[in-house]
Order: sequence, then C-alpha cells, then structure tokens
Amino acid sequence: MGETTTVREATYELLRRRGVTTMFGNPGSTELPMLVDFPADFTYVLGLQEAAVVCMADGHAQATRSPVIVNLHTAPGVGNAVGSLLTAQWSGAPLVITGGQQVRAMITASNWLVNVDATKVPEPAVKWSFEPPRAQDVPAAIAKALDLAQAAPSGPVFVSLPMDDWDQEVDVDVVEDLAARRVAHRAGPDPAVLLELCEALDVAEHPALVLGAAVDLAGGWDCAVAFAEKTGVEVYTAPSAGRGVFPEDHERFAGFVPFAATAVAETLAGHDLVVVVGAPAFTLYPYAPGRLLKPGTRLVLISDDPDALARAPLGDGILSDPALALAALV
Amino acid sequence: MGETTTVREATYELLRRRGVTTMFGNPGSTELPMLVDFPADFTYVLGLQEAAVVCMADGHAQATRSPVIVNLHTAPGVGNAVGSLLTAQWSGAPLVITGGQQVRAMITASNWLVNVDATKVPEPAVKWSFEPPRAQDVPAAIAKALDLAQAAPSGPVFVSLPMDDWDQEVDVDVVEDLAARRVAHRAGPDPAVLLELCEALDVAEHPALVLGAAVDLAGGWDCAVAFAEKTGVEVYTAPSAGRGVFPEDHERFAGFVPFAATAVAETLAGHDLVVVVGAPAFTLYPYAPGRLLKPGTRLVLISDDPDALARAPLGDGILSDPALALAALV
Amino acid sequence: MGETTTVREATYELLRRRGVTTMFGNPGSTELPMLVDFPADFTYVLGLQEAAVVCMADGHAQATRSPVIVNLHTAPGVGNAVGSLLTAQWSGAPLVITGGQQVRAMITASNWLVNVDATKVPEPAVKWSFEPPRAQDVPAAIAKALDLAQAAPSGPVFVSLPMDDWDQEVDVDVVEDLAARRVAHRAGPDPAVLLELCEALDVAEHPALVLGAAVDLAGGWDCAVAFAEKTGVEVYTAPSAGRGVFPEDHERFAGFVPFAATAVAETLAGHDLVVVVGAPAFTLYPYAPGRLLKPGTRLVLISDDPDALARAPLGDGILSDPALALAALV
Amino acid sequence: MGETTTVREATYELLRRRGVTTMFGNPGSTELPMLVDFPADFTYVLGLQEAAVVCMADGHAQATRSPVIVNLHTAPGVGNAVGSLLTAQWSGAPLVITGGQQVRAMITASNWLVNVDATKVPEPAVKWSFEPPRAQDVPAAIAKALDLAQAAPSGPVFVSLPMDDWDQEVDVDVVEDLAARRVAHRAGPDPAVLLELCEALDVAEHPALVLGAAVDLAGGWDCAVAFAEKTGVEVYTAPSAGRGVFPEDHERFAGFVPFAATAVAETLAGHDLVVVVGAPAFTLYPYAPGRLLKPGTRLVLISDDPDALARAPLGDGILSDPALALAALV
Repeated sequence: MGETTTVREATYELLRRRGVTTMFGNPGSTELPMLVDFPADFTYVLGLQEAAVVCMADGHAQATRSPVIVNLHTAPGVGNAVGSLLTAQWSGAPLVITGGQQVRAMITASNWLVNVDATKVPEPAVKWSFEPPRAQDVPAAIAKALDLAQAAPSGPVFVSLPMDDWDQEVDVDVVEDLAARRVAHRAGPDPAVLLELCEALDVAEHPALVLGAAVDLAGGWDCAVAFAEKTGVEVYTAPSAGRGVFPEDHERFAGFVPFAATAVAETLAGHDLVVVVGAPAFTLYPYAPGRLLKPGTRLVLISDDPDALARAPLGDGILSDPALALAALV
Repeated sequence: MGETTTVREATYELLRRRGVTTMFGNPGSTELPMLVDFPADFTYVLGLQEAAVVCMADGHAQATRSPVIVNLHTAPGVGNAVGSLLTAQWSGAPLVITGGQQVRAMITASNWLVNVDATKVPEPAVKWSFEPPRAQDVPAAIAKALDLAQAAPSGPVFVSLPMDDWDQEVDVDVVEDLAARRVAHRAGPDPAVLLELCEALDVAEHPALVLGAAVDLAGGWDCAVAFAEKTGVEVYTAPSAGRGVFPEDHERFAGFVPFAATAVAETLAGHDLVVVVGAPAFTLYPYAPGRLLKPGTRLVLISDDPDALARAPLGDGILSDPALALAALV
Repeated sequence: MGETTTVREATYELLRRRGVTTMFGNPGSTELPMLVDFPADFTYVLGLQEAAVVCMADGHAQATRSPVIVNLHTAPGVGNAVGSLLTAQWSGAPLVITGGQQVRAMITASNWLVNVDATKVPEPAVKWSFEPPRAQDVPAAIAKALDLAQAAPSGPVFVSLPMDDWDQEVDVDVVEDLAARRVAHRAGPDPAVLLELCEALDVAEHPALVLGAAVDLAGGWDCAVAFAEKTGVEVYTAPSAGRGVFPEDHERFAGFVPFAATAVAETLAGHDLVVVVGAPAFTLYPYAPGRLLKPGTRLVLISDDPDALARAPLGDGILSDPALALAALV
Repeated sequence: MGETTTVREATYELLRRRGVTTMFGNPGSTELPMLVDFPADFTYVLGLQEAAVVCMADGHAQATRSPVIVNLHTAPGVGNAVGSLLTAQWSGAPLVITGGQQVRAMITASNWLVNVDATKVPEPAVKWSFEPPRAQDVPAAIAKALDLAQAAPSGPVFVSLPMDDWDQEVDVDVVEDLAARRVAHRAGPDPAVLLELCEALDVAEHPALVLGAAVDLAGGWDCAVAFAEKTGVEVYTAPSAGRGVFPEDHERFAGFVPFAATAVAETLAGHDLVVVVGAPAFTLYPYAPGRLLKPGTRLVLISDDPDALARAPLGDGILSDPALALAALV
C-alpha cells in the first residue's frame, strides 16, 4: 500500500465526490464510529423510527433524482425499515441503506447487537445486500451500492458495516479510483424496435399514451408533453402512479386509468394502440376476471424494469429508460 | 371428501381446540376475508403500527406461555414488523404471524397488494415461513405453525394467506384430526449426562447457577428456587436477561452477571463450577478482548437452543428444556 | 372462463409460439405428467446427470442465442444442477429450468419427492425462482420465465411445477395473449453518452478495444470487426472470455488480456483509452495487489450487466447491449 | 493475544481434539491453502464429482455416527453437491461442508472463483451457512459447525473459507477452549409425558411399534429389540426408511409399512395404538386421498425432529431422541 487514510475518511470522500452528502438515519451505538467527526459539508436528517426515516429518504431521493444514504441501526433498526423499503422499491428510490454491525470479533458468537444473518434482514426489499469481507472493502462496497441503487430499475440496496471497520486504514489510490468513476445508468430503445413503434403510431387512428411514475423519476416530463403536443395523442396517468406524470390541465390529458381491472378495458376502449411508458401494464386492485383490453386494442409497454415487461398478461414490450424512449419518439 | 366446512370456519375451530383465541393485529383489506364473522369467543387486540403490535403479542405470549396469532397486512405490514420479530425471536415468544396475500389469480402478475416473495419478507426473524399451495392446506399450515412456534427454541413463524382462500371448502375430518393433535415440545436432559453434572456439583467447592429468561419462560422459577435452597448454590441473573428469573431478595441471589465482557470473569472468579441455564454463555457488550472465565472455573451450559450450545467460546453443553433440567437436578 | 384447454396443452402451445421447442432434461416421476403426449414437433434431449444436462442446454442456448427449457426432477435433480447453473449464469445462457414438484395436496406435510423450499434450491444461480400459486398460473409463469431469462443480463430462471397441475383447465384466451407477446430485451446506449465516447475515441492516440463473450452472445461479432476496420483500433479478448469474440487471425487482433492481475496493466500499457465491451473489467486470478491500469490509461466499460458496471474498481461505465453499442459506434 | 498459531494449525488441532480426522473432498485451487502440510493423522478421501463425494461422506457419517468434513471447491463445486446434500439432510448425516472462497481482497469485485453469495448456494440443504467475518474466526466457525451438525435433527452445515485465511495468526488459548468443549446433543422425553405413554401401552390391546432410520442413527437398535421382547409389541419398519432398523428375522418383526398412502391404514388396521419412533408419520408416495389410519387406531410419534412432529396430519407427538425414548420406555 502507498499512502493510506481511514475507512471513515475514505468513505466520506467517496460520497462527497459522488455528490451524495445527505444522510437520513436513526443511529444507535453500532453506528457511532461511522458518525465520529461527521463532516461539516454533510447533512444528517434524524428520524425517530425507521419506518419514517426511510419514507423521508424515499421522498428526497425521488425529488432530487439522486442516491441517498440511510443510516440504520443493527438488526431491529434495519428490521423496522423493511415495510418502508418495500415501498421505496416500488417507487424506485435509489437508497443506499447502511446497517451497523457489531465488531467483527463478536459476530461469530452472536453477542448483543450482532446482526445475525445481516444481509437477509432487508431481503427481498433490496436489489443487493452485502457485508464486506474486510474493513478495507467498505469504500468499494459503498461505491458498488451507489451504482446498483441507480441501475434500472432503481431502488434500495443494503450494506452491513461492522463498527470496528471505520478506523482501519485503506489505500488512498483505491478510493481515488472509486470516487472518480461515473456510470451512465440509462439505456435507450433498440433503434429498429423504435422505428416499428413509430410506424405503428403513424397508422394508428386513435392512439393513447399511458404514463407511470418512472417517466417523471427519469426526468421525462417535458418529453412527454412535447410528444403529446406533436402527435396529438391522448395521455392518461397509469393506475396507482405514485406521483404526477403529466400536466392534468393540459388539453391532451385524458384522465386516469382506473385501479379496478374491469374498468381498464372500458376506459381504453376507443383506442387502437395504447403505449404504456414507465408503469406496469397494469397494477390492478381488486380482483376482477376478464381481459384487460378489448379486442382491437394493441398494447405496447416501454419500461426499464424487466420484471414489469415480463409479467404483463398481454401486449408487446420494449426495454428502455422511459425518458430516453420518449425523447427518441419525439 | 366427506362433510366440508369453509377454510375460515375450520381455521377458527382448529385455533379454538388448540386453546389459541387471542389475536393481535393491524389488518388491511387483504385480511378482511379472514375476519368476516369473527367468532365471539375470540379476542382481537388492535394496534396501529406493526412494530407495536408484535411487541404486544410478544409480551402476551411470554406472560401466558402460549402461542398467539399476529394478524398482519400484506408486504408493508409484515415488513414493518420485522424489527419487533427479531426481538420476539430473541425472547422466544411463540408467535404465529399471518400475512395477508392477494387473491391467487393476481399473484403471478404482481398486482397491487401482492406480497411478492411473501415468505422471504420476515426471514431471518422466523423459524418457518410458508404459503400454502392450496386453500385446502391453510388449516394444516396453521396447525404446523402452532407447533413449530412452540418447538425449542420457541419463537415466531410466518404463514402467508391468500385472501380468496377463506371461503373455500375443506374436509371436516382433516381439520378434526389436526385440532385433536397434542405435541409435547419439551425434552429433558440425557440421564447419563445429568448424572455426571450432579457428581460435578457434589464435588464443587463453590458452584454458581446463572439463570436466563428461558428458565422462567419454561416455567422453571419454582424449580430454580428449590434447587438453590437444596444445594445452597449462589444464583445469578444472566447478562441481558429479558425478564426476572429468580427472586432478587432471596438469600441465595448473588446479583447480575455484568454485560461487559471484561467484568464477567471478575464476577464469577470465585466459583469453580458455573452452571448456566436458559441463556447463552454469554451475551456480551461492548467488545473487550480476554477470556470469559478465569482458569479454574468450569462452565456447563444447559439450553434448549442448539445455536446457543454450539456458539459458546468455552465450556460444556447439555441440550435440555431449562425447567426439565432444573427439575431433574432437584 | 370461455373455451378452455389443459395446462399441458396450453404450455406447449405457448412454447411453440415463442419458438422454444427444444428441451433438455433428466426426468423422474414428478415430471412424467408434463411429458404425457409429448408433442411431435418438440425435441427432448435426455441426459443422465443434471450437471451434464444443464451444460448441454447452456451450450445450445449460447449457440442458438435462444431460450431453452431444462426439465429437471424435484429436489435432488434440481440440486445436482446448481453447479452447472452457476456456470450458465456466468455465460449468460437464457435457461428456463423446470423442477417437478409433488401433487399440491402432499406438499404441506412434506411427503416423498416434495421439493421443500423448492424456490430456494437453485438460488443464487437464478434470477427468478417461482412456484405458481395455482395450476392455472403455470402458462403465465412459463411466459414470464422465458422473458426474464432473456432480460439483460441473460441467464437461468427457475419454475417449480406441481405434478397435478398439468391436467387442470385453463382459459384459451389467456394463453393466446401470452403466446402472442414479444418483448424487445436489448437496450442501447444513451445517445449523449455515446457521443462523448466517440469524441474520446477520436482524440485518443492509441485506443484499444477489449471484447468479452457477451459481444458474441448478443450477435455483435460483425459489428466488432467493422468497428475495428473502420477505426484501426487494436482488439483484445477479455480475460476468461468463454467463447471466441473476434477473428484471431485478423490484423487488428492484438491478443488476449491476461488472467493475472499484475499482467493486465503491462498488456494495456501503451493505450491511452481502453474500451471494454461485454465483459467485466476485469475478471482476475490469482490475487495480485496493484492498480489494474497504468496512470494515463482511461477505461470505459460497456455492458448490459449492472453488476459488472457497478463493481469495477476504476473507469467509467455505459449501460448498453454490447452489440447495439458497437453498432452505434460504427 | 498471547501465544499464537496459524488458522490452519488451529483448525486441524480442533478437529483432532474433537475426533474428526476423516475428510472427503474434491478440492480445487481455492482449497489448496487449507491442504498444505496435510497432517499425517488425517485421512483425505478423494472423489471426482461432488455429488458422489457427499454421498460417500453421508454413508461414512451414518455408519460411524460421527461428524465428517466435506472439503469442496468454491461455487461450482458446492453447487454440484446440493442434490446429495438434500439427501444427506434427509438421512440426518452430520456433515460439515467447507467451501473454498477467493482471497478476501478479491471478493467484493467478484473475480474468478469468487463464490458470490457463498452462504446461499447450499441453502436450503443445510441448517447453518456461514462465512467468518475474519480469518481469526475460522476455528470458532468450524467448532460451531461441528456442534450444529450434530444437533437434533442432525444434518449438513456449511462454512465458506477464504483461501488467504489459513496462514493468519490466531490465539492458541481461544482454540484450546474450543477444542475442549463437549456438548451433549441428545435430549430425552419429558418424564410426565413418557409416563402417560407407558400407561397407554399398558392398556392397549394390540399395540404396534413403527421404527424409522433415526432410531438406528441414534444407536437405538438394541433398545428397540429389548422393548419389543419385553412387551411383545409388533414391530414395523417405517415407509422409505433409509437403513435397517430392526432384525427382520425377529419373531416380533411384522413387516414394512407400505409407501402408498392407501395401504398404510390397511397394514396397521388391527392395532389400537401405533407408536412411531424416529420417522415422520408418514412419508408417502404416490398421492392417494384418505385418512392415514382407521378410526380406533391412536397414533403417537416420537422424534427429535420438530418439523416431523409439527407436520403430521394426525396423532400426538413427543419430542425426544429416539434412542433415549426407547431406553426410557424399556
């Protein structure tokens, strides 16, 4: 090793360089070593129960379209957060959850505050769950967590951090390389597939656009408006969208696709082509048997979530960031 | 099938026959079909956030030494409970957690209120996590859950229950057989091993007894007092015991084994034989290097928790229900 | 329900319409109901141990760039396959593994041939693991499995199938909708990010291209050759690539990036820009401390695998299908 | 720390002191550091595919009623073993599986031979799965694994071992304490419950004893013969018992309880009390609806497996080591 710094210094420098200086949390004793000499250029937003802390961070991440650190206590603290993490997963909030862990020497014998099976506690609410095998790997684990949280479909990830790791030494160069990395997380539509969709839109007599929360999360609001104005398509909000997706006083706004299965087909009955962007097709409740769309209505779903694309009961699908797809359509 | 009844009727009859008529919960729409025609001889204790609901049930189960049903909402409801479930696991409370699930026809496409990966949400806080493969298997799943929750070491289990299962028909005879079952969950010490321990206690000059919460949870309070009075052994409370384990004004009561690793050896220094019953040996905090006991002090641990027996850093172990072991020693 | 068919008929029709008519397998009694009246237009390739069966299917899927069904026996059969599934995951083979399961009525009591915790057996070698909550959901589960296996990064998925599901009735229209679906699984680079890379390539004095197996898996061989010939870039094969990625007698072919960490920097020392496509950066063995690249060499990684993008120790990343990225660069 | 030794020396000394000097395995490069200077008093039985290696170890463990180390290669090696591990779990073989892992510094970036999600690969075939958080914890992890493998119900456990841990230093005293530990893993029946069973046997007109493999695994063969000769009870072998449980030429031997559900009730029809020891009640195949026993036949199940006790569809249960229960009955 060449020049070294502490894991604590290295981690804050990494976060600073990646532009992540807001933390939400409800710390206990296992988190205190991480918070010693808390940097003045960071903001720590304290909450008193983890269910609320994660919701606050979820809203902040959605509003700023940026990753947020959520600093939670060992097992019970992380456990209290699981319900809100499932919601954050649904809303696509890129949260990096840190859970304190006992000092490494006490973990194997399961002493007080040991997070036994630490990486399992937040599953299946997170995309990645990891406890670094050495103190020196904490910065790399946080760096990986930041990128995975933003990878499509964005959402929470978890890193378990033993409390004696923060004072260990780590190579400055390793952290410099990690801090300098930039990953472009958004991928656009296959050009050949997009062309087919454009042709289908051209020949459609009465196309509709149904937008979900992921459009605005990806920054696609303006593209959606531009596309609607250019093509005259009618625009709907998808069922159970968690945020506004289109100006509801716009003349192209046609209303909300209802939540009840039976009513979806009625609402979209007049359209020969329905393009859903950034939402599952569809999220329904309560149960009502019957086909989602009337014969004669073709469905195309554009999403950056492979699960949403794979589980739709009918229609075609295109993998793409919602905003990049709308920009390409425009 | 012969005579049938609904899954709902069958399940309440099973619970009634097993003596489990108290439920704690915070229901949502996925739980309503279970609660239709709620029987007058059952008590439902409502709480408004799952972290509190589980703690209430935990206390009730410990105080009554009986299984309790905890009726939670689908994914976010169960998720909110995970922190308290980890605590209930630590305290050995035999909780049967039920989590509502969407109607079966909506699960595969992940609609609103679907508990995706339902059985994983409460892991690793539960010993068993199950979603029945058919509505007709709900009573058998609940019956199994009741017994597994009480099996040593007692603790929470989870059953995911699709909301359209409750009105389905199930064979009356199947439920009658399940309701009539009685399992003896407590096992005692190997007689040969117990004899060796008695001989060791006889020759010990200054033995000590360290009692944990599992002694009282198993109903061993009176046996502990009788043993102390018969043998004159000094009695300590284990570190971080979650409840009283011995009358603290009794003349044989010698105090509390401290929580800090360094102080354990000091406290138990004068004893040549330390018998720990119903607690890990030991649960410590904070970290302090050094041997738990001074040379010359032998440790024997009696527990019904194989993990506690396996993870102790030193000493011998005996698998047994704590109360049966104390009764046998007396 | 309108017109119905059996789950068996529906599933084979779905596979036929999706173009998946080759199955590899080693069936036992739990698979026999699936194989009754095996359709004449399907091919079943029998193997006698699952480790080999999966490898055969892996090779077939890679060579044909298409999903393949792998038909395995309940618990021990699926268990025998896990090692080869981890390899298939590494090679990105879109395998849909089916595991037989006992009849639904026998699962809860864990009888002979019950795959207890069926969905956990192949984890973490699969991206999705599912047991349908009803027989009627088998076609939708297989449809979802086919698409998820192909979603980037492509790889194995698992569906557990109770043996009494095959004769149940399912709605013909539901299956028709599932069979007609087409999902475009490949996404291309963000145009703005690609432009930056083009500019970087223009100004680079001595750029290099390092290609991994995913390039050829995505059908990018010709694009890679075209790009090399157009730009004169030197082309290397990535460490531990599982297949040929570039004509090794081509004048632009510069050799293999070595497997040993210390030698990577030496090999790529003369290049000021290294673009890795379709491989991690880098997969190394054995351990050798030290920076992967010499100062002055910039690394850009293009991959459709968010994990590979997130875990690289240095350099920038671009999410994209490897072949679409090379096509766009050309 | 006081006097130290290497993790390798410490681990072999621990195994030697616990009487475990036979290893089965199929090593690769990640296992070589563990096998350097392999001690002359240990035996290494080499196999060439892990499915066979585990079966050999399973048989050895059953025959010797002792824990066995199974030394497997990282991810694909452990993966190949999962099918046989599920069988070993069924047979109750106390196997300690070791899986090699890459050097700690290479794990976070997922290089070649990294066992990503190492602890998940053998789940759910093992009772405990662990990767030590430090090299110094390897002996404690192996010690815990030895005891948990033998804890009722006995079966496989897994420990993932980074290949650079073996040359690290560990405190001699820590290992000495671990090596000296002895845990009594067998617990006997609750005396009050046993008394009730004795009374029921006394008044039964035509009792039967059904024995499973766990009787012989626990060393209860002689007790079973003694009990049968003393009481004149008819003795059957349980369905799908994996080994002989009673002398089949003995005059009290009444035959095998059949595997098919419908035939169990016929076989046991004449008995008013059936006591099953050391087997589930019952493991059946294929599916056949109907009650397991005729009206008038009472079932009592004695087992050290809480899951077998909890999942039986009818009858009462007693938690106990099978051999201790038979000894107490005698």
